[in-house]
Amino acid sequence: MIAKKMIPYVQNNSAIRLMFEEGNRLKAKYGTDKVFDFSLGNPNVPAPEALKEAIIDILNTEEPTKVHGYMSNAGFPEVRQTIAEELNGRFGTKFSGNNLIMTVGAGSGLNVCLKTLLDPGEEVLVFAPYFLEYGAYVRNYDGVLVEVTPNTETFQPNLVDFEAKINEKTKAVIINNPNNPTGVIYSEETIQKMAAILEKKQKEYGHAIYLISDEPYRELAFDGAKVPFVTKYYANTMVVYSYSKSLSLPGERIGYVIIPDEVEDSEGTITAATIANRISGAVNAPSLMQLAVARCADAGADLGFYDKNRKTLYEGLTKCGFTCVKPEGAFYLWMKSPAADEKDFVEAGKKYNILMVPGTSFACPGYVRLAYCVSYETIVNSLPQFEKLAKDMGVA
Amino acid sequence: MIAKKMIPYVQNNSAIRLMFEEGNRLKAKYGTDKVFDFSLGNPNVPAPEALKEAIIDILNTEEPTKVHGYMSNAGFPEVRQTIAEELNGRFGTKFSGNNLIMTVGAGSGLNVCLKTLLDPGEEVLVFAPYFLEYGAYVRNYDGVLVEVTPNTETFQPNLVDFEAKINEKTKAVIINNPNNPTGVIYSEETIQKMAAILEKKQKEYGHAIYLISDEPYRELAFDGAKVPFVTKYYANTMVVYSYSKSLSLPGERIGYVIIPDEVEDSEGTITAATIANRISGAVNAPSLMQLAVARCADAGADLGFYDKNRKTLYEGLTKCGFTCVKPEGAFYLWMKSPAADEKDFVEAGKKYNILMVPGTSFACPGYVRLAYCVSYETIVNSLPQFEKLAKDMGVA
Repeated sequence: MIAKKMIPYVQNNSAIRLMFEEGNRLKAKYGTDKVFDFSLGNPNVPAPEALKEAIIDILNTEEPTKVHGYMSNAGFPEVRQTIAEELNGRFGTKFSGNNLIMTVGAGSGLNVCLKTLLDPGEEVLVFAPYFLEYGAYVRNYDGVLVEVTPNTETFQPNLVDFEAKINEKTKAVIINNPNNPTGVIYSEETIQKMAAILEKKQKEYGHAIYLISDEPYRELAFDGAKVPFVTKYYANTMVVYSYSKSLSLPGERIGYVIIPDEVEDSEGTITAATIANRISGAVNAPSLMQLAVARCADAGADLGFYDKNRKTLYEGLTKCGFTCVKPEGAFYLWMKSPAADEKDFVEAGKKYNILMVPGTSFACPGYVRLAYCVSYETIVNSLPQFEKLAKDMGVA
Repeated sequence: MIAKKMIPYVQNNSAIRLMFEEGNRLKAKYGTDKVFDFSLGNPNVPAPEALKEAIIDILNTEEPTKVHGYMSNAGFPEVRQTIAEELNGRFGTKFSGNNLIMTVGAGSGLNVCLKTLLDPGEEVLVFAPYFLEYGAYVRNYDGVLVEVTPNTETFQPNLVDFEAKINEKTKAVIINNPNNPTGVIYSEETIQKMAAILEKKQKEYGHAIYLISDEPYRELAFDGAKVPFVTKYYANTMVVYSYSKSLSLPGERIGYVIIPDEVEDSEGTITAATIANRISGAVNAPSLMQLAVARCADAGADLGFYDKNRKTLYEGLTKCGFTCVKPEGAFYLWMKSPAADEKDFVEAGKKYNILMVPGTSFACPGYVRLAYCVSYETIVNSLPQFEKLAKDMGVA
């Protein structure tokens, strides 16, 4: 007697659980350190010491009725102002605290944007490969997810197919930059061209098309790469952020949505988004964690840790003979499957206790994703196993 | 260009903001201690010292990658088990951790239940007066909210109208016990009769009708009153709880949903609810706060504080000549308006810097709600003002 909409999720869930249980079975059998689990985006880097100190100081010095109490549904005004100013300092933007809504992580932030915008039947474009959860988020509001086919040369968005798939029902586009699962950073040139297409299509169809930029990996960019700050290129942009990755707080569910003044009817849209945050049941983002991240606004991620993993894994796998996209950001490595069906490759990896996620889970078969937010030892110890796997697959 | 569904919320929002701004205007003009604000359910009691100590100890002794990391979408298994055992000890239930899903407060918990259950057009019954946000939650899933008219004698649910309004489209009933806004506790007799009606109607229509019991005020019951634990009276029950009131943590958004084994297809329903928690964007309840509340599972609310306020306000208002429902639980007092339109009474109160919420905001005109989770001084100092107001209204 559960809702009809929930039935496919429940049916699909057993497949995910099987994968998870198989990982646990391998770990129980061989020991956790003998299993090379590249399947999860749970950071292995601990949250910064500054965050712990901030939490303890807040608890010792501020009124508990404030620290744990209700505030505006958009979040503490001073927290939003601090974050706005920090962004303005780094990106040359002109946000005030009123442009920010604190949310229960980026997942909830994306839902706030989509609930604010979508009427049933309206279309949301995503670029394959993409985080499949976007589909669930769009369906939450009876929207229709439309996939843009991948550009397997560069894994930059395929703007030809993008332009072809925009129609009068298109309400929004979701991008994820730096990208999960490919580790690619969408370049300034890409964003400029994308903005130009959107401007043209807005005029053609006579209504706003929103660019929703999901940026939990914004701080994870290597070799000095710059991640374009999208509000500067296109007016109808909403930015969704989470501290999950930069401060290693995925379980805390703390992030924000930016709705700039340049967005069409920004005041009404900000009000609607604040109400969406409330009536989703979230009410507001967790209060203590709001105060804590504001004190660590400039703490940033431990880039060095991920960079070392990135280089070691990329070089090691390439040496084995695998074809990989060189990761520029986030903490994922995207690798071509030597087998025609990448699920066969994922299965073959399990023989060597290597756990990878098939590209089909990101709407892009023929590839696998490796999350390298694991310990350095896991990377180093996995390489001899990958070497054996490469021989089995005939790439060595 | 916001979603059509959001437009009425945005329009209605300005009325709420006006009320809020008027309160702020009065406080700025006369001083916060000269304004008697009974409009908000934000507890004035600080969170227990034990909670602060628990948070600091967790930060100092446990791995940050665990404390702030992802866990099962239903919550940490040991947290759910601890809470289940604490409930079993108090209520003689037989829950395991698997029957609990940790949620982003009760607001999110209610949304998890409704998303799990509702198909578009299905009806959800609520008993007036009720928390109007239930309407938004039901509309989130295209359900239809059906109001049962109040029993203004006792403010126990009107079971005659309840039975008459159940039909083949009825999927669920939401109760809130102890009740916001009336302060009444639904008695064991009420729950037994309600369960009998539901059993009969389930047979008549051949499908499950779920009882969703929203219980953030469960621990706030005075004079030794017992709040019936609803899963013991009716199989298809889901209990929604929040630590907002018992531990004074409304801003932290931490609570849970119980889905007992007795619920029809309990395994599928628990799986669906766990997925609903995930795809709503919440993903999981805030991690540090999950660990902290588990350590304070038996800490409880400062009943003495609220009880003193309750008695002083109830006796004071009654002495003034007002007609009040004697509060049995929660921290609300429900008072009959001496004016035919209670909004005139609310306006008249403002002359004496008294802020009350009109019963219309709970679908029950002719009454007002006073939230007495304020300081004792506010109560004491408000009484001479209420005396003047009573004279103005001709009840003294």
